[in-house]
Amino acid sequence: MQVFLNGRIVPESEATVSVLDRGFLYGDGLFETVRVFNGKPFRWAPHFQRLRKGAGFLAIPFSWSDAELTLAISDLLQRNGLSDGLLRLTLSRGIGPRGYSAKGANQPTLVITTHPLQIGQGLLQWKLAVSSLRVAAGDPLLTLKTANKLLNILARSEAEARGADEALLINTDGHLVEAASCNLFWIEQGTVCTAPLDAGALEGVTRELVQEICRGLGIPTAFKRISPPALYSAEGTFLTLSSLGIVEAVELDDQPLPRTKLTARLAESFQLQLLAEC
Amino acid sequence: MQVFLNGRIVPESEATVSVLDRGFLYGDGLFETVRVFNGKPFRWAPHFQRLRKGAGFLAIPFSWSDAELTLAISDLLQRNGLSDGLLRLTLSRGIGPRGYSAKGANQPTLVITTHPLQIGQGLLQWKLAVSSLRVAAGDPLLTLKTANKLLNILARSEAEARGADEALLINTDGHLVEAASCNLFWIEQGTVCTAPLDAGALEGVTRELVQEICRGLGIPTAFKRISPPALYSAEGTFLTLSSLGIVEAVELDDQPLPRTKLTARLAESFQLQLLAEC
Repeated sequence: MQVFLNGRIVPESEATVSVLDRGFLYGDGLFETVRVFNGKPFRWAPHFQRLRKGAGFLAIPFSWSDAELTLAISDLLQRNGLSDGLLRLTLSRGIGPRGYSAKGANQPTLVITTHPLQIGQGLLQWKLAVSSLRVAAGDPLLTLKTANKLLNILARSEAEARGADEALLINTDGHLVEAASCNLFWIEQGTVCTAPLDAGALEGVTRELVQEICRGLGIPTAFKRISPPALYSAEGTFLTLSSLGIVEAVELDDQPLPRTKLTARLAESFQLQLLAEC
Repeated sequence: MQVFLNGRIVPESEATVSVLDRGFLYGDGLFETVRVFNGKPFRWAPHFQRLRKGAGFLAIPFSWSDAELTLAISDLLQRNGLSDGLLRLTLSRGIGPRGYSAKGANQPTLVITTHPLQIGQGLLQWKLAVSSLRVAAGDPLLTLKTANKLLNILARSEAEARGADEALLINTDGHLVEAASCNLFWIEQGTVCTAPLDAGALEGVTRELVQEICRGLGIPTAFKRISPPALYSAEGTFLTLSSLGIVEAVELDDQPLPRTKLTARLAESFQLQLLAEC
């Protein structure tokens, strides 16, 4: 694999950062995971915008333009011969004086890597487990795709240890927020619901796309605060992530979740959008 | 500077990790900051124990023994000619398959760096500002020294923008937890108080040392949950960190904090302990 590293293309074996890079020291950075289809990044614009917005929030100087990165990505995808898979962009604050203060760290590190992706046919189905960990309701960092992902990693490990595929995250108010690597949707009386951002949800690109699809199909949507047991009486539950699109949730803590044909319909709309745009 | 990198000693310019190291991707790791005095690490044992405990909690395989690291550190300090300063140990989960799941990431990265430290004479005095960010009360990750430090970095930036030296962190229950890079103590009716770990406080090595010093001096200690304004009516407030020991807090949100001679007495005891052990 060839890797984009601060404007240069280098072989993976040479794609390294200093042990003093604040990304390695503190997770002081952001990332994006972008689906690639037919050799093109899907929904690149909102990913780029979120990265730039996050950099603004963290005051990481970000001078790459949309056009520069579009060109770099196109070049990288060609060199790596990737038609269907994933891009990962990682932005860190780079090297600075020792300590938490960000003063004097003005040369960020930008890395772009490509990754293959195995996706089978049909709607993916995952088992969920509620995590014992709690995210802080209202934490603005949770809306960004930051490189601080230990809680998500631990939650995923907990879920895997219990035989589930993915963890559900609850906030300190007891409300459902999202899954460790996905946004969460559920359907109540035909309305497609998800948690509001200020509950602690990531401002997900596929989360926004689902709402766009619903508007197109005339399906009502809402932002709601619920606790986990409410999913057992919902009509259906699904997850969204950039890499896989829509994944149906079929179990929560070893108990079956209700299922609705609407989930498959939305997943089909997602696939049509992918085909139409890439 | 020479750097310890997975058992080898390399020049700083060659001390690099892969861009696929989970420390860089997710902050999936831990660190320790250890004071060095007279060429010796101060209170190494509890730092080593916390690192090993954290690795156990995060299920990062950690095979380095106390004796191996003690030898490596002694060698590194000699090569770098560091008599008075800091050591930083960084442990990450290393490289693994893409995604949050920790499965298959079994070769951790261990880095040790040395850093000079400028400490003036006498008791340091800092101005504090309460952060707008909230940590999740009860989050077990907060008791460990993880490499997820974006909230602390942002809180510090907020404080600096307001002319303060350091940020005070509050949890989602509204209780004082610690400062962005330090534990927090305050004195109430002669009792030296700090927040309990389950409020979200780091299990700090100097936090423990202060309690040990108090026991030695016959000064009562307590774990308490208070909100920030209570510091204005405390007898004194101070911070503890491995690098600087004890720092007196003299202002909170631009208002003066009461001061007590007990803070200077504890700081002196800290210095005596440093001299006695190193």
